Amino acid sequence: MTRVVTVGAAQLGPIARRDSRDVVVERLLGLLHEAEAAGCDLVVYPELALTTFFPRWHVADITEADHWYETAMPNAATQPLFDEAARLGIGFCLGYALRETDADGTVHRWNVQTLVERDGSIVGTFKKVHIPGHEEHEPHRPFQHLERYYFEPSPDGFGVWEAFGGRVGMMICNDRRWPETYREMGLQGVEMILCGYNTPLHYAPDPGQDPLQGFHNQLVMSSGAYQNGTFVVGVAKGGEEEGVPSLAESAIFAPSGETLAKATTDGDELVVAECDLDWCANYTGTLFDFDRYRRPEVYTRLTTQRGVRRPAAAT
Amino acid sequence: MTRVVTVGAAQLGPIARRDSRDVVVERLLGLLHEAEAAGCDLVVYPELALTTFFPRWHVADITEADHWYETAMPNAATQPLFDEAARLGIGFCLGYALRETDADGTVHRWNVQTLVERDGSIVGTFKKVHIPGHEEHEPHRPFQHLERYYFEPSPDGFGVWEAFGGRVGMMICNDRRWPETYREMGLQGVEMILCGYNTPLHYAPDPGQDPLQGFHNQLVMSSGAYQNGTFVVGVAKGGEEEGVPSLAESAIFAPSGETLAKATTDGDELVVAECDLDWCANYTGTLFDFDRYRRPEVYTRLTTQRGVRRPAAAT
Repeated sequence: MTRVVTVGAAQLGPIARRDSRDVVVERLLGLLHEAEAAGCDLVVYPELALTTFFPRWHVADITEADHWYETAMPNAATQPLFDEAARLGIGFCLGYALRETDADGTVHRWNVQTLVERDGSIVGTFKKVHIPGHEEHEPHRPFQHLERYYFEPSPDGFGVWEAFGGRVGMMICNDRRWPETYREMGLQGVEMILCGYNTPLHYAPDPGQDPLQGFHNQLVMSSGAYQNGTFVVGVAKGGEEEGVPSLAESAIFAPSGETLAKATTDGDELVVAECDLDWCANYTGTLFDFDRYRRPEVYTRLTTQRGVRRPAAAT
Repeated sequence: MTRVVTVGAAQLGPIARRDSRDVVVERLLGLLHEAEAAGCDLVVYPELALTTFFPRWHVADITEADHWYETAMPNAATQPLFDEAARLGIGFCLGYALRETDADGTVHRWNVQTLVERDGSIVGTFKKVHIPGHEEHEPHRPFQHLERYYFEPSPDGFGVWEAFGGRVGMMICNDRRWPETYREMGLQGVEMILCGYNTPLHYAPDPGQDPLQGFHNQLVMSSGAYQNGTFVVGVAKGGEEEGVPSLAESAIFAPSGETLAKATTDGDELVVAECDLDWCANYTGTLFDFDRYRRPEVYTRLTTQRGVRRPAAAT
């Protein structure tokens, strides 16, 4: 029995501030139909795929931003996507902002991706772990990156789900820059990692990194794939959105680290690759046989300290 | 005050089985003199730089291999290198096999690198952590990779030393493929990692990886550099040694992950780059400010398990 999953990375171009969910869902459906024509089993949409990237604006009262968050999934706006995907027998992964209220009234705001199987059932919802950017309004920036104001970091870490005939994990945007992300999933036997992102080309704290955004994007996903013997599907919201140019370059990486397919535009575009999950064992069963070769007994700093502790100066 | 360290990656071509230490040290001195002409502060030699890569052969009685190991450093064969480097005021990093005997008679065999300051003082000796290959003779292979027979894994993990005006770490060959390696040093504020390697182009357990050896070599060092904001100096013993073709491609990587300099031959060759250690802070002080952005509380699998534990099947 083969375990080939045909994946479509459904890159989106910009979503304007004024665009309604209905307008966006029409675009998602368009890409879904392209995916059907391409024989896809699974379609992966970007981070915050239902709205513009609203953390670029500050609001003094966070509840003024509530309209950017979903409070249930599916909901009225996304039900047509759920229905049509189930009708076609195509699974999908959708990124969006989620607002939840606990029984005691505590409000949580998460940056999430929900994975849906080919029959329309929800496999799981992943909350972003590594929240980048800043907490406070910084008016000197040309645009804000207030994710740490708008989103709480996940307390749950990285899960892996049995789905699509294999073991599937999720990460969102900045999570992909951290080797711990891939390794946590690698240690659960992950075979395919789904990652939506919104990456402005300008990085205010160190603009020297701006021309390297594409290089770094490729570097971290390619190395994470190789070092854990897993496929990685990276999906951008690219192009110039509300005056902010963002990285496109959606791509699908093999367990070898090789790029199987890559976007050629910065707009709505479906990037497709056939992923044979059995390829993973070529790496996880040899060079990266963790049971045989890892040395966790000498990795203690990874979990006992968060930041840098410099060694004592040489005597 | 600038913190520019000019580094020479002193790649070696093959060392024949019959070559004496004296013959090899003459080659090391030749590269040292090239480094002097290039204005180097530090010269990095490959893994097992004093002998051929002897783990490619099996001996039934391991003591028959004792002649491949040093028992002191410096010793008679390497003293000319120590003397000349100190005279020139150039530091160096030298890889070799080390055999030690405890007071109780226990014998240890290590794969090590020793780092020497510009004044000739020994900064530290690093023992390889991730020992690749196999433990038993496997006659079906075209050549052996018996590192797990010949070397004990380091119980000490990855240290970082104050040297050359910055914080310097070391790793050896297969260590470079593991993101934990770089992160352990990153958490100690490393600014430059020195890595010797011997990498046969043929990997018997999965020959599909053979054409990717150069790609993987670059991928892991580049991503390790970027994700920890550190320079990485990778130095090969390349070319065809005793019938086994090995990867060359020695290279020096910036904290941006970019390749600053790379070998163009597979023989003895000095690859030089000026490394401004202050560049590291562009990454460690922004995107990779570990104190601000790491999430060790959700990385528990990294140290509580060695190998893969698959999630329970979905209900």
